[in-house]
Order: sequence, then structure tokens, then C-alpha cells
Amino acid sequence: MTTNVDGTHDATLTSCLDSANDPATDFPIQNLPFGRYRSEEDGAWSVGVAIGDQVLDLRRAGVVQNSQMNQLMRLPRDARQAIREAISEGLRRGSPQEKPFRSALIAQTEVQMGLPCEIGDYTDFYTSVHHATTVGKQFRPDNPLLPNYKWVPIGYHGRASSICVSGNSFARPVGQTKAPNSDIPAFGPCARLDYELEIGVFISRPNILGERIPMAAAEDHVFGIALFNDWSARDIQGWEYQPLGPFLSKNFASTLSPWMVTLEALAPYRKAFTRPEGDPQPLPYLDSPANRAMGAIDIELEVWLQTPAMQKAGSAGERLMRSNYADAYWTVAQMVAHHTVNGCNLRAGDLFGSGTLSGPDAGQGGSLLELSDGGKRPIRLANGETRTFLEDGDTVILRGYCQREGFRRIGFGECRGTVLPARP
Amino acid sequence: MTTNVDGTHDATLTSCLDSANDPATDFPIQNLPFGRYRSEEDGAWSVGVAIGDQVLDLRRAGVVQNSQMNQLMRLPRDARQAIREAISEGLRRGSPQEKPFRSALIAQTEVQMGLPCEIGDYTDFYTSVHHATTVGKQFRPDNPLLPNYKWVPIGYHGRASSICVSGNSFARPVGQTKAPNSDIPAFGPCARLDYELEIGVFISRPNILGERIPMAAAEDHVFGIALFNDWSARDIQGWEYQPLGPFLSKNFASTLSPWMVTLEALAPYRKAFTRPEGDPQPLPYLDSPANRAMGAIDIELEVWLQTPAMQKAGSAGERLMRSNYADAYWTVAQMVAHHTVNGCNLRAGDLFGSGTLSGPDAGQGGSLLELSDGGKRPIRLANGETRTFLEDGDTVILRGYCQREGFRRIGFGECRGTVLPARP
Repeated sequence: MTTNVDGTHDATLTSCLDSANDPATDFPIQNLPFGRYRSEEDGAWSVGVAIGDQVLDLRRAGVVQNSQMNQLMRLPRDARQAIREAISEGLRRGSPQEKPFRSALIAQTEVQMGLPCEIGDYTDFYTSVHHATTVGKQFRPDNPLLPNYKWVPIGYHGRASSICVSGNSFARPVGQTKAPNSDIPAFGPCARLDYELEIGVFISRPNILGERIPMAAAEDHVFGIALFNDWSARDIQGWEYQPLGPFLSKNFASTLSPWMVTLEALAPYRKAFTRPEGDPQPLPYLDSPANRAMGAIDIELEVWLQTPAMQKAGSAGERLMRSNYADAYWTVAQMVAHHTVNGCNLRAGDLFGSGTLSGPDAGQGGSLLELSDGGKRPIRLANGETRTFLEDGDTVILRGYCQREGFRRIGFGECRGTVLPARP
Repeated sequence: MTTNVDGTHDATLTSCLDSANDPATDFPIQNLPFGRYRSEEDGAWSVGVAIGDQVLDLRRAGVVQNSQMNQLMRLPRDARQAIREAISEGLRRGSPQEKPFRSALIAQTEVQMGLPCEIGDYTDFYTSVHHATTVGKQFRPDNPLLPNYKWVPIGYHGRASSICVSGNSFARPVGQTKAPNSDIPAFGPCARLDYELEIGVFISRPNILGERIPMAAAEDHVFGIALFNDWSARDIQGWEYQPLGPFLSKNFASTLSPWMVTLEALAPYRKAFTRPEGDPQPLPYLDSPANRAMGAIDIELEVWLQTPAMQKAGSAGERLMRSNYADAYWTVAQMVAHHTVNGCNLRAGDLFGSGTLSGPDAGQGGSLLELSDGGKRPIRLANGETRTFLEDGDTVILRGYCQREGFRRIGFGECRGTVLPARP
């Protein structure tokens, strides 16, 4: 478990950069998330760390030798920790290296962010029992939670090519749907377009095909976490997903936030991971004392919606819900151990989606499917508009942050995407 | 459709290389499949074409500028066709270029073959209605073929990292299974390990996210075809696959043959594609006159099993079944058009699996699940052994070839993999 709280987490640390000391920033010196950026249209991607309103170029600061994020990610954990400490020291107020580090800064407003790394394979899990139960009720009223759910960290493979970075817009997908009262399918634009609030987990160290990763080593293979929106076409999904799972209902676009918050940065926000009384305990390959003691991560998550009318009125949007990653039924370590128990090999830069992160309470659904009860009860927005599913022009923004008494609040930046009309 | 029969298909063409004129070779001058090889343990991959018992190094022969297979694959179709013609001319008996081409040859026995390209995303389809019906009966006796099957080319995302090239061996996977009479799952080695006879289709030209590929252009985006074994752990699959599809039951290993037979080489073997009377016609986005006229490809397929006892006795194995890719319910063009109808982007080197290619007759099941009726009726081998599912040490070999009156037979080489005991 990556739970060692050290000097880089000290709440009294301040940066030589004023914007990093602003209490409202997502990127104080205690955070230091990694991302890729470029400053000109056709330039190559550089590896950077967010600090206040700036990006620190790691190569120009002398912290890394080249601009290959995936190479950096696959370093052993102690090497990654040493990089974190070097960056933290270089950016501190009064650092002897303030000058070279300052010369490696560029304003976030002047760069274009890319996907944080080259994603090899993308796997989506289904770790929220609250989401699985609520959605299960809609698809299978008699059998909401399948018998395997509390034993198997359910996951399935997703599409890597269509993962975009925050700020993307995409055309409403078209495809086949079938109305319950029709014998044959129809073809046209998706009418039940939805978002899914997830986190994305990035793999660092690879394992060799055939070699499983045990729980005790699982977090050594994890680099960090970003926000992830797994856009979903519910009507296409309903018609296509039997017997092999979702396909075109998911692979038209997914959106990632540009900054990977490292497990090291998240160390102060770890929590005990317990199952509700009466639930079966995980099988041994999915269990460890450390996972029980500190397996959960306390990340507050929010979904915001900005409709075209809100944008016109100058509103940044309305918050639709909040949930917390600590309410997931399976941990990061359990996802890694399960994914490799059969010998499947992970590579640096592979991405795991958590699955939709709904909370236990009504109103904590991580998708419109849940908030509108399958489209049956429109949600009412403060400006009088209503939504069952997403309309053209809608922008969805995911936000996330960690806070704990005695520690500096750190944030994930935002994960933003906009729905465009379907192409003719 | 890539159905133009030209001078490169002329059955009277002979090669300057005797082994390519052997009637038994898979690789006469009419074939010219592409693959990657290296001649030393740590060397970089080169791009080659199989000819008789040799490999032609395309860079050394002056046909391509570099050894990047994915770059070659993404060339426009006319450029790929020009490369095919240049290779065909250079390798002909009496070619003025015989000398430089001969100096670019290396024996297949002296090289190590790699995966034919870098695979980005891998999608597995389910295009055999015979497989879907037989397997559906086992999982859902009351409802073997789901209502969407004849409308939707069912597909789902697979794992790219664990795709290996022919000749690989892999440990029997372990995982969770649940016996029908048990309330809780067990953990241990898979007891129902199976192969799946498939073809793999490689993408050439990419499309941009949001831009669908119509049927008329679909085959311009396809490079070629290889043999593909989608090894499957049936007992793990049965417990994990609801509601999101197969996961650990598939991603422990898949095996590809090393040579991509191009659509250009397959032009003489195209066939009309018709649906059984009474079946619905495909929706317009999945239909075209050319697809009806020539959408199918006549590829004979075989599965061979070599048990440890056969190996000991010096036997190359026993053929378990034969089927033909022309019996698939959905064509290559339909897979491409369906995959992109929602705007999903394909990249050069992406792989589509056809799904298990079973034939219409009893005994034509493309997996042991079918041949042994779900493990209920062991198959009897000529040496007296029996099998329901694969045992440790078993080697499965897929073979494929095309033949037609007036044309030279071309083959796919073999796709071979061996099951090792589970790791402790």
C-alpha cells in the first residue's frame, strides 16, 4: 500500500510560486500530478507536473532525461518517489534550485494538454455496488445484483482508441435501438445519451504474461488516478449488450482529465476498507491485512452540468451530485490482483476505469440513468430546465478532490466534455 | 470490395525460388503474406513477405523505406497494391531484379517470427450463427439465439496485451469458478480450457473519431487476414460473464499466426454472400450490392490437436474439424461498417477476431465446447485417447487455405499454441 505520509505532504510547505499557495488551487505543492502538454500546435508532447496555475517541464527542470511519460511511469516505486521528492524540493519557497525550476515553468493557459500517457489496453470495472444495484433494478427488476457481484470484481475490456482528453466534444452517436413494443430495431441518433462518473487508474510497472500480481505488491504496479467519464448510449446498450457486453454503446468516446494524481500524493487520504456486515469476505487472492486497513481512498467526486442555456446566461453550470470513491466495493489493489490472477499481463500506461461511482444515498447516482430513474423522472435544474438524458450542447464536468484535517486539500482538475449533434 | 483478379493471381506464374513452386507450399508467388521477423535474439523486427520456405526482407529488397509494419499497413490501397505488384515481379522466374531480391531472402527456419504488427485495440466479433446457436443452447436452452443476433454484428472488446504469436505456450489460467450445486465460488486452475477457431482481420487505413466508414469503403480499411485462436476458460467464463461479458476467461492468452494474407491475395476466393430465406435483410448501413455479390471469402479452416501421447509417438496430430469462413453470418465489410457507425475510430494494426467459426453440420464446431456438447460427450481420438476439454501439454494447431479451380492454392501457415500446467 502506498500509504506513507512523508515530508512532501507537510501542510505547512509552501511553494516559491504564489499561485500554488492559493487555498483554492487544485495543485498545491503537496499534489504534483503528472500530465503531457505541448505549447505549439504541432510540437511534440512534453512531460510536466501541475503546480498552481503553471506546468513544470520535467526535462527542462533536469528531473527526467526525456519526455516519454510511459517510460517514467514504469520506473520502480522508489525511483518514482525520488522524482516526487526532487520536484517537491525544487518548487519549495527558498529552494536553492528555484531559478532553474522557475525557468522550466509555463502557464497552463498557454499549453494544450494531451492524454496523460499512451494508453495500451483499457479495462472498465464495475466497483460501485450502489450503481450495480440501482442499474440492475432497471435491467433486471427481479434480480438487481447478480450472484457473482460480491465475489468477482466484475470488469470488461473497453476501447482505448476513442479515449479523449478533457475539453473534447463529440457527435452524439447513432446506431441500432429497439423499442420494447417493436419487433425490429430502428436506426438513428441515440436518444438516451448519458455520462458515467468514474476514476481512471493508470498502471506503472508491467508484469510478465503468466505472472500474477499478489495483493501485497499490487499498488507497486499503480502510477496514479485521474477523473474519467465513460459516456454511454443507454438505448444502444440495451439492444446490443447480450450476450457479450457493451460495445458501440461505449466506444464512441470517453473523456479523461489531463492530470494523473499519484498514489504517493494520495497517501494521506487512505481509509479502512470494510464490507457491510453479512457480506462474504473476499477470497484470499483478493484480500490482505493492508487492504483492509488502508485499501480505500477518500476522494470526493462531483458531476456538474452546463446546459447551453446556462452557458448563455454566464453560468458555469450546476452540480448534479456528489459521491466518494471510498464507497466503492472493490479497491485499486483488488482490481490489479484480479486482473492478473489468470496471468494476464499489464503494461505501463494501461488504464482501469472504476465503473460508475454512485453513492449509497438517493441522489448519489453517478449517471443520469440513475438520477432520472431510467428516464422516468426528469431531474429539475435550478434554472427551470429538466433533463432525463443529455441534450445536444450539454457539457458535463467531473471534479474531484481530497481533504483531511491537518493536510492541504489537493484536487484533480476537471474532466470536461461536450455533446454535439449527431452527424447526418 | 477487394475482388479484382489481376496478373499477380495468374496460376501459371512461377517464382525464381524453387520452394515457392512446390505444390504443397502455403506461400507460392500468388500469396505474398506480410509478417515481422528477426534473425537474432535481440535484433529489431524487420518487415518481410513469405515466399516458399524463405522470407523476403522488404527493406533490403528496396520495396519499402523502413521496417515499420504499421506504417506500411496504413498506406492507401493503391500504394499497397503497387507494393504487391513490385514484390510479385521481383520474385518471378526470369525477373530482371532476381539478384537483389535473392540477396534479401532468409530461410524461415533461421528467423523468429513476431506478431505481424503492433496491435492497438482488439475487438472480437461473434459472426458464426452456427457457433452462436450451439453455444446459446448450452447457456440458454430456452433461448439459444438472442433476438439481436440477426440484426447486430455482435462484438466486444478484447485484450491486446496478451496476444501472442504462433508457437507460444501459456500456463493454464486459474481463477474463480462456481459449480451449479454450490452457493459459493471455488478458486483454482481452469478445468474447462478450450480453443476457439477464428480468423483475425487487420485494419489498414484509420478513420477519424466521429467519422463512420460506409460499406462501400469498408474494405479499403482492411489490410489482411491471419488465423486466430481465442483460448477460453469456459468455467471461469460461466461465472464471471454476467452482466458485462467475458473478461479473465479470455484475456490470459490469444494466439495469432505470423502471416497476414492480404485482401488483394484473397481476391480470387470471394463468393456471394446470401442469408437464409426468411431471415431479415441487413439494415441499410450494413448492406451493399457488392457485399451481396462478393462479400464472403472462401477460406477452408482446420483445427488439429497434438496430445503429449501423439507427440511421443511422432504424430503431428489429428484433425478435429473443418469449417469455412464463407459460412459466417457477417462479412469483413459489415464488421468495419458496424464498428464505426457510432463514430468509433479504428487505427492501423487494430485487430478484429471473427468469433468462433463453426460450420452448419454436426462435427463442425469450432471449439471443444461444441464438439463435446459442453463436456457431456467426450470426443474419441484415433489413438484411443478422449477429450472433453484441453489437457496440460496439448498443442492446438489452426490451419487455413484457399483453393479454387484455375487458381493456385494459397495457405495461411499455422497458428500453434501449447497448454502448460497451471502455476502453483
